[in-house]
Amino acid sequence: MMRQGILIVLSGPSGTGKGTICKELLQNDSNLHYSISATTRPPRTGEVNGINYWFILPEEFKEMVEHGELLEWAEVYGNYYGTPRRYVTEMLHSGKDIVLEIDTQGALQIKEKFPDGVFIYIVPPSIRELAARINKRGTDSPEVINRRLNAAYEELACAYQYDYIVVNDQIVAATAKITAIIKAEKCRVKRNAGLIDVVCNRESTD
Amino acid sequence: MMRQGILIVLSGPSGTGKGTICKELLQNDSNLHYSISATTRPPRTGEVNGINYWFILPEEFKEMVEHGELLEWAEVYGNYYGTPRRYVTEMLHSGKDIVLEIDTQGALQIKEKFPDGVFIYIVPPSIRELAARINKRGTDSPEVINRRLNAAYEELACAYQYDYIVVNDQIVAATAKITAIIKAEKCRVKRNAGLIDVVCNRESTD
Repeated sequence: MMRQGILIVLSGPSGTGKGTICKELLQNDSNLHYSISATTRPPRTGEVNGINYWFILPEEFKEMVEHGELLEWAEVYGNYYGTPRRYVTEMLHSGKDIVLEIDTQGALQIKEKFPDGVFIYIVPPSIRELAARINKRGTDSPEVINRRLNAAYEELACAYQYDYIVVNDQIVAATAKITAIIKAEKCRVKRNAGLIDVVCNRESTD
Repeated sequence: MMRQGILIVLSGPSGTGKGTICKELLQNDSNLHYSISATTRPPRTGEVNGINYWFILPEEFKEMVEHGELLEWAEVYGNYYGTPRRYVTEMLHSGKDIVLEIDTQGALQIKEKFPDGVFIYIVPPSIRELAARINKRGTDSPEVINRRLNAAYEELACAYQYDYIVVNDQIVAATAKITAIIKAEKCRVKRNAGLIDVVCNRESTD
């Protein structure tokens, strides 16, 4: 029985540790693949084209939007982010699971197109902790940090539109929770239509 | 933040290995407690009153039904089975998780009263495998075995009314899936109302 892959969407305020959790998940699960977003924002130190993002020009982004090549896209702080459609649909059809690390605007667009996706919102233990983490990263100006924290309050209200909330107080524990969510989702009745027929038919073919 | 316990309902055709899985789950998770059913059927070899079931007389069962002391009850093969209400509600209120091992009739009654319960249907890899397991147990007459297998076909159709389906081909793997389901369910948004307030308030109390 060929099973369709599962689309997993991870969101959460900037600085919550989504990226680290994603990396852990991908290391532990060879059936899980990462959907690389396209963006018009410049790379941060250490970010590599084709690994962290597809860094593209605004004109290229616009063209992808016009040709329907993006599953979702959004503008965040003046930059554009989007999910290329082709890779995601190909992976899902071949039974591979896909993880998308996207913002809440994008997640809600994906939810309309993939209602069977698994939507997970990652939260920091507290806003104070979040501020400390963003400061520690040292890649953003004080003005940007302030804007991010204010946005975090607003974004947190979107959490209730997701299926799961995972508090990231410890990377290992938070990753284990998401691993359990993926394992559990594979057992959901809606993803196993036909399983009962298989159970019964094995007898009748005897 | 005090969290209500989770009610977990396990069902599946007779001989599927529900009992063994239940035992494993309880051994691995100290927050999980077993709801002992009351029944009017005689004990099988090795079954102990107050551990496997509360073995009671038909008059006592009738009295419990009349006094509303059962969350669900059903007649199966001429015997009565029911879930005493008090233990379950007390455990859930004190944040303990409860596992009920009951038949599909009972499970659907529980679903009406506890829509937030987690309903898991355990299936054998095949009906043929199920027949082999029941035969091996050697506690039932050939007539009873036949009746059970015919019932299994009908019962399997009820699986689609559950939340999850777990194939029990290996006890350890099936138990791990149910452990993952319980872990995942604790992260569900509907069980974490108020979590976001906690995340934000920790900052404001500073």
